[in-house]
Amino acid sequence: MTTEAPHAEPRNRQFKLTARPVGLVKRSDFELVSGPVPEPGDGQVLVKVGFLSLDPAMRGWMNEGRSYIPPVGLGEVMRAGGVGTVVKSNDPAFSAGDVVVGLTGVQDYALGRAKDFTKVDPRLAPLPRFLGALGMPGMTAYFGLLDVCHPQPGETVVVSGAAGAVGAIVGQIAKIKGCRVIGIAGGPEKCAYLTKLGFDAAIDYKNEDLKDALARHAPKGVDVYFDNVGGEILDVVLGRLARKARIAICGAISQYNNTDGMVGPKNYMALLVSRARMEGFVVFDYAPRYAEGMKAIAGWIAEGKLEAKEDIVEGLETFPETLLKLFRGENFGKLVLAV
Amino acid sequence: MTTEAPHAEPRNRQFKLTARPVGLVKRSDFELVSGPVPEPGDGQVLVKVGFLSLDPAMRGWMNEGRSYIPPVGLGEVMRAGGVGTVVKSNDPAFSAGDVVVGLTGVQDYALGRAKDFTKVDPRLAPLPRFLGALGMPGMTAYFGLLDVCHPQPGETVVVSGAAGAVGAIVGQIAKIKGCRVIGIAGGPEKCAYLTKLGFDAAIDYKNEDLKDALARHAPKGVDVYFDNVGGEILDVVLGRLARKARIAICGAISQYNNTDGMVGPKNYMALLVSRARMEGFVVFDYAPRYAEGMKAIAGWIAEGKLEAKEDIVEGLETFPETLLKLFRGENFGKLVLAV
Repeated sequence: MTTEAPHAEPRNRQFKLTARPVGLVKRSDFELVSGPVPEPGDGQVLVKVGFLSLDPAMRGWMNEGRSYIPPVGLGEVMRAGGVGTVVKSNDPAFSAGDVVVGLTGVQDYALGRAKDFTKVDPRLAPLPRFLGALGMPGMTAYFGLLDVCHPQPGETVVVSGAAGAVGAIVGQIAKIKGCRVIGIAGGPEKCAYLTKLGFDAAIDYKNEDLKDALARHAPKGVDVYFDNVGGEILDVVLGRLARKARIAICGAISQYNNTDGMVGPKNYMALLVSRARMEGFVVFDYAPRYAEGMKAIAGWIAEGKLEAKEDIVEGLETFPETLLKLFRGENFGKLVLAV
Repeated sequence: MTTEAPHAEPRNRQFKLTARPVGLVKRSDFELVSGPVPEPGDGQVLVKVGFLSLDPAMRGWMNEGRSYIPPVGLGEVMRAGGVGTVVKSNDPAFSAGDVVVGLTGVQDYALGRAKDFTKVDPRLAPLPRFLGALGMPGMTAYFGLLDVCHPQPGETVVVSGAAGAVGAIVGQIAKIKGCRVIGIAGGPEKCAYLTKLGFDAAIDYKNEDLKDALARHAPKGVDVYFDNVGGEILDVVLGRLARKARIAICGAISQYNNTDGMVGPKNYMALLVSRARMEGFVVFDYAPRYAEGMKAIAGWIAEGKLEAKEDIVEGLETFPETLLKLFRGENFGKLVLAV
């Protein structure tokens, strides 16, 4: 179904969500269909997708119910961010050959209005980076850390999922801001990577006692915690907060696949003991300030102060299995699917 | 043991904590001893306790472990706030007859330094009120609501434990500040009381579906939630937050007697969806500003804008059983023990 004879008419492959997953995503929750490449109508543009962003948040989009954006409907193309090249444009704002980012969906070709996409300059960085450090993960790290947590020089910042797309950038920005940074990640390879990035300490939660390690590395307590994982790790960090600590709730990847519902932080009364706060945020709210975040991160990359890493897997057809890498903690840096 | 012949030498009865309670407090967790009234030493004052404040927080003080103040040691007199009269003073700051508040402990006579007590003017209010609206509960309501939550006119404020010592004042202050106020309490009598106090709505969580009632009374969502109870009620309110909502974590009375640990808010990711924050506070931090809070609350009482209610039980010897009224939701207003 996914093979094409050379020079055959191009086809548009699409992953459509056909079932609400229970627990981990399965291939059978989707239907892979192939159809003709659509023609853009008046005011529309057609984008050939180059790379897709695979994100923990996608798991939440597959569930029914109230959230910060509506769920993907059954029968709809699975939502995903992507970067690609304009093939045809019926909007004067775009020309064929322009490189754009946007919610392309898990497919070869995305059709939309010009306003649904944002033009980027492909000379600035390799395309997958526009889905990572220069895309949503970078913006999430930048605004979540600086705007929600207000880290001060000398403070202790802890980040979980620290070798992931968002976490690695959070830790590096915190270092740039003069903080002491502790990363929590699974496995010695990821921890070695964090140390190489300049983190002051890396805790391998799979092989160390997190509570002991945190007591050792954060003897005066945790001033800022950027949480990507939820679950037990959140509880342990809550038990180690410094006075007036700030926690940014960015995600809870440990909980997204629970079949019997989320587990809440049983240690949340530590907020009272430590006069601390826990705050949620959604990166889309910062859209009017993305230019600021892009400029800062691109500058730090250019100065060699921030390293961006992408984990690129080939083949649209691998989508369901590649997505699972996130939930198994197998990705290393920003997980990207090369279409 | 507690009876005295007329004109007998006065004795000092004391409740000492002898066991760390498991679940609900039992009389056998304490020893009631009776001894001679102590003599104040150099710089000390002796206070005859008139009324004791019974507070949910006392349950936490009986547990071992890190909290915002050290636990009561085994064999020590149980900690409690109280109001009483100076009997003897070896400190020029106090004279016999002065009325003072402070952490007197659960006993007839408290011995301490002058700095351990604060003089109050008994002409301003009946003495038990210095343990309620003009004491810690009043200060907790005032600073927790205004300083942590910043309620704005027209916003929807929800308070749980709304007929309790803190909750009833929180709701009344929110009304004074121009908010729409919804109280959550157990039983029709308490709810009728809230309506009488001017709350816009009162939800009887024991006899109504809280989720439905909240949807009805807060159609645009909850801007401020002042939480005294934790548990399921916290989860339901989390599911109804408005954008940029503020939650003050004041207590979690539904959880204090769990023998298998606290249950955390499984709905805490609503903080992300609603870009909301949850913040803990401890009233003692506001000690430098108590005068401001006292003046405001006394003023509102004098103007008839705020009603203070105390639930007074007679007899020091009833302490363990009277304390249980709190955890059974049987008190109505500030629970005070008349010594």
